Amino acid sequence: MLNFALLGAGRIGRLHAANIAAHPKARLLLVADAVPASAADVAAMHGATVASVEAALASAEVDAVLIATSTDTHAPLIEAAAAAGKAILCEKPIDLDIGRATAAVRAAAAAGVPLAVGFNRRFDASFASLKARLDAGAVGTPEIVSIASRDPAPPPVSYIKVSGGLFRDMMIHDLDMARWLLGEEPVEVYAMGSALVDPGIAAAGDVDTAVVTLRTASGRLAQISNSRRAAYGYDQRIECHGSMGMIRADNLRATTVEVATADGFARDPVLHFFLERYAPAYRAELDAFVEAVAAGRPPAPTGEDGLAALRLADAAQQSLETGARVRLG
Amino acid sequence: MLNFALLGAGRIGRLHAANIAAHPKARLLLVADAVPASAADVAAMHGATVASVEAALASAEVDAVLIATSTDTHAPLIEAAAAAGKAILCEKPIDLDIGRATAAVRAAAAAGVPLAVGFNRRFDASFASLKARLDAGAVGTPEIVSIASRDPAPPPVSYIKVSGGLFRDMMIHDLDMARWLLGEEPVEVYAMGSALVDPGIAAAGDVDTAVVTLRTASGRLAQISNSRRAAYGYDQRIECHGSMGMIRADNLRATTVEVATADGFARDPVLHFFLERYAPAYRAELDAFVEAVAAGRPPAPTGEDGLAALRLADAAQQSLETGARVRLG
Amino acid sequence: MLNFALLGAGRIGRLHAANIAAHPKARLLLVADAVPASAADVAAMHGATVASVEAALASAEVDAVLIATSTDTHAPLIEAAAAAGKAILCEKPIDLDIGRATAAVRAAAAAGVPLAVGFNRRFDASFASLKARLDAGAVGTPEIVSIASRDPAPPPVSYIKVSGGLFRDMMIHDLDMARWLLGEEPVEVYAMGSALVDPGIAAAGDVDTAVVTLRTASGRLAQISNSRRAAYGYDQRIECHGSMGMIRADNLRATTVEVATADGFARDPVLHFFLERYAPAYRAELDAFVEAVAAGRPPAPTGEDGLAALRLADAAQQSLETGARVRLG
Amino acid sequence: MLNFALLGAGRIGRLHAANIAAHPKARLLLVADAVPASAADVAAMHGATVASVEAALASAEVDAVLIATSTDTHAPLIEAAAAAGKAILCEKPIDLDIGRATAAVRAAAAAGVPLAVGFNRRFDASFASLKARLDAGAVGTPEIVSIASRDPAPPPVSYIKVSGGLFRDMMIHDLDMARWLLGEEPVEVYAMGSALVDPGIAAAGDVDTAVVTLRTASGRLAQISNSRRAAYGYDQRIECHGSMGMIRADNLRATTVEVATADGFARDPVLHFFLERYAPAYRAELDAFVEAVAAGRPPAPTGEDGLAALRLADAAQQSLETGARVRLG
Repeated sequence: MLNFALLGAGRIGRLHAANIAAHPKARLLLVADAVPASAADVAAMHGATVASVEAALASAEVDAVLIATSTDTHAPLIEAAAAAGKAILCEKPIDLDIGRATAAVRAAAAAGVPLAVGFNRRFDASFASLKARLDAGAVGTPEIVSIASRDPAPPPVSYIKVSGGLFRDMMIHDLDMARWLLGEEPVEVYAMGSALVDPGIAAAGDVDTAVVTLRTASGRLAQISNSRRAAYGYDQRIECHGSMGMIRADNLRATTVEVATADGFARDPVLHFFLERYAPAYRAELDAFVEAVAAGRPPAPTGEDGLAALRLADAAQQSLETGARVRLG
Repeated sequence: MLNFALLGAGRIGRLHAANIAAHPKARLLLVADAVPASAADVAAMHGATVASVEAALASAEVDAVLIATSTDTHAPLIEAAAAAGKAILCEKPIDLDIGRATAAVRAAAAAGVPLAVGFNRRFDASFASLKARLDAGAVGTPEIVSIASRDPAPPPVSYIKVSGGLFRDMMIHDLDMARWLLGEEPVEVYAMGSALVDPGIAAAGDVDTAVVTLRTASGRLAQISNSRRAAYGYDQRIECHGSMGMIRADNLRATTVEVATADGFARDPVLHFFLERYAPAYRAELDAFVEAVAAGRPPAPTGEDGLAALRLADAAQQSLETGARVRLG
Repeated sequence: MLNFALLGAGRIGRLHAANIAAHPKARLLLVADAVPASAADVAAMHGATVASVEAALASAEVDAVLIATSTDTHAPLIEAAAAAGKAILCEKPIDLDIGRATAAVRAAAAAGVPLAVGFNRRFDASFASLKARLDAGAVGTPEIVSIASRDPAPPPVSYIKVSGGLFRDMMIHDLDMARWLLGEEPVEVYAMGSALVDPGIAAAGDVDTAVVTLRTASGRLAQISNSRRAAYGYDQRIECHGSMGMIRADNLRATTVEVATADGFARDPVLHFFLERYAPAYRAELDAFVEAVAAGRPPAPTGEDGLAALRLADAAQQSLETGARVRLG
Repeated sequence: MLNFALLGAGRIGRLHAANIAAHPKARLLLVADAVPASAADVAAMHGATVASVEAALASAEVDAVLIATSTDTHAPLIEAAAAAGKAILCEKPIDLDIGRATAAVRAAAAAGVPLAVGFNRRFDASFASLKARLDAGAVGTPEIVSIASRDPAPPPVSYIKVSGGLFRDMMIHDLDMARWLLGEEPVEVYAMGSALVDPGIAAAGDVDTAVVTLRTASGRLAQISNSRRAAYGYDQRIECHGSMGMIRADNLRATTVEVATADGFARDPVLHFFLERYAPAYRAELDAFVEAVAAGRPPAPTGEDGLAALRLADAAQQSLETGARVRLG
């Protein structure tokens, strides 16, 4: 049984709380949040106790922390949890600053505590199956990875301003997927972006529509397209073209219903947003973390994975700003 | 909070036990089974207590029973639970004998206890959505309902012998769906069947492949096809052709992955069998039962629904044996 | 080079005329029609000459006749063409009366002339491929053949009155497909039908919505559903469930375009009607006829195929009228 | 009636010859080819006459030339045909050198003869329908155009060496489609490419796998991926993400057949290559040319379209070589 303290009881924290509470090998002991009422609400829902972050980290009963607070607190909480010897599952990104993020990951490594970063898409059943078949050689060597990732609607501009920008906030997931699927580290990054969805996003200095191209040392390519708006739902698709074929994973719908009338054939929009689409992935992510910690194996995606994706996001941002290709590694 | 006694801790009983235990408004109090170790196992898994059927029905704490025992015990257990004033959710079929089943349903009605029959497919997200849109007029008036329902592999002949035959054991689900979707009672039934899958099934006097046609008073038609074998998984599809179009619900797969190679494009088999396909439907069924009992509304599908489907199954069996159309009502 | 006389220059005749004219091994020599202007129009379009039926059959230059006149003239024209020693490709049905149709087929056989019946669906690329793979064992032994065949809109009641009824006019195509795919002769037929689309069809003594079940001697089953109305286009689908799997052929669309908006995902209706859907099939039918005659092989589908489908249609009509299963053979 | 001289009787020339011969408003009068036997063969097939290029251009009977010779002869033939006052339909590319191509287009303009370039994909039924709906506002303003275009297998290295490189030879089609769909001129081009398919292609100084990103002045984006190898057939897909949704056109297959077995569900590879996929598009292209010339309208795609696509291809090649974004216009 792995005893958890949940740090952060917002929307994502609540989702993690429910998954921990329902997990046969995990228990939700303590809940901390800057807003005491939020912590109390989540704690009551799952029979846990409210605690301060300090108390949670000091508790000898707590084996692991799940960090779901605001991004700017991730790095210090990782360091504090590492100092307290707790296993850590931290929501992405580790930090918006690569230096600060690196320090946190190094601290966890130095303390010898397990650290996983919440790149939940790796645990999506379709994407995980695609990856497994790709690794098994189903389509030969990967040559072109194509990722379409589009949110149903843009967040408020107030959020954009503290988000770190589209590449660090949104595309970081896709950059992680690209690394994972390419099977090699990207060494070149090129980005183009525009603000087509909301002029307020442009005013905030960010883009809402972007296309990034990656290239690995051996010449494998990846292309990612992001938009902050997709009228038809949360668009999450992956395709990998390989030497012997192509493998892809499509969106999900709530039902398989199709209606045919004089207007043609109609199906529903795809699942609305990440809470719907990735609900099972969050569960699988927790499961993998619990299993790894229990077995004494390092959990994945690792802190280094978190840093690598952030470096790619930084490179994409730099490419956008300079109009030039950025070389890595 | 609705306190349940689970009667029957076999494969289906375990599934119901987990759903009750996870339900925010339900509690699994007692578990009874003819095999004490099974009851103990399920009780331990969910913090419940083992009890005899008699003790379960006598317990003042128990509000509802979920009957998941062998078919021959359903009717007496319904009657006993009715006498004890418990709400009842009973697995299908109520009984293989229409007279016996009718008596049980009448007993529950006389006692004024809520009784629902486990036609779980009505709670499948795709089928429920299809029905809701059909009722909302998405394709006009229903004219031809087509149901394909095929098991992945035949059960052992020993099971076939006590099953009541394909129509009462397997097609009864599809007959319930046909009634539900037609929106009118069938008044004519015609069946053709063959034993093509397993000669042992023929030797046991049953068929393993069957096609049934139904007709309502206003002339709406339904066709059902059943097979005890489908190499590609548990085939569960519905289509309704109406005056203004057509609506259908397709099978489900575990992932959306598609692989393209020189051999063409390949997707996985459909979900293997009812435990996989209808897991969410069983949860939704329990949810609907709990909500209805809590609200004082009669739960559905009702005992009368159970009897109506059994009458259709009997008619199909009679048509198969006589080669003649059977008129109902 | 096979020289054709076209008998009948209506809608179907014109389609055949264009196919003959475009065929590298065929030539359209003569065109006959009860309406001289129609014949003249078609002849002018393809560089052919107008002739009377008598003159066409008497012409030594003519090798083959394509009969596309009204149904009641098919049988006498087959007999006359047989007497004149011409190869015959005749539109379906041979005749609405099985006795009259049989006489015509016997006459062609006695004269030793090649006779093919225009069951064009056998030449549809998807259906032909399905049949070829079925014969190659792709899904094992056929067990349940399911055919959905629905017209976009009902014909005028005036046509219904002379059509011979839904089974002989419309379902005869599907009955031929069922025979072809089952690989065995049906020995039992059961039909249910209703007039749900147009009360005028009921008043004319016909049905517009029908479901037929067939059974072969070894127990293979087929189910056919017909409607005279399908809002979403000409619905033409086939599915064959076999001992090792399932094979199916879906409808066709003019394009692969899919549009996704906030309302969901939309595709166009399927191809509108038989002229669109089966245009390539009519060409392939002519090609097969020309090749067979040139090679001295009997063309298919044969006159006997025409008679067998008509016998099934008669049996379905009889079953509809009596409410009883009809046994054949 | 538009009288054609066909210049070039190779693989593509033969396809055009058949389309001209079958066109109701066109006639194939003369055929010229550097290999006399080829010209004679094609001429015989369609009742045309062999002629030299000079004779063809000098013939007063000839209204239009279809240029399907090797690329290096396109520009001089356009100029000669323009001087002779003939309408011109020229296969793409106009020339591998933008200066030479521009001179040819200017010559045609100066002579006032109609000139169309063979970007046949614009006439594909699915792509044309997608474009029409996009223009009609089906998904709002275009924001991200994604084009996947992959050949089934690489051409011989000998061809690669004279091809002008992947961007001018293969991607030029996709660059034309991107311009067409974006509805604005691209002003920035960035390319990444690799030789992953055939080391001989690398040795010849070319790439066989490439990804290009385009950006228009208002910020619309396009991404194109090309590969010289696709095990599953000729992969030709387009997707356009707009402010109100997404529209896409998928690949085509020869049949709609799907086979389900214990291994899962299988469909055939997509149509093999451009002759299969775009056969109807070549016919529609000719039809549009004939209609435009007959009506005195300028045919499309215009010579300027040909130049614009070539400029994009040159920019992509330059980007590949320099690693830097190229600005246009």
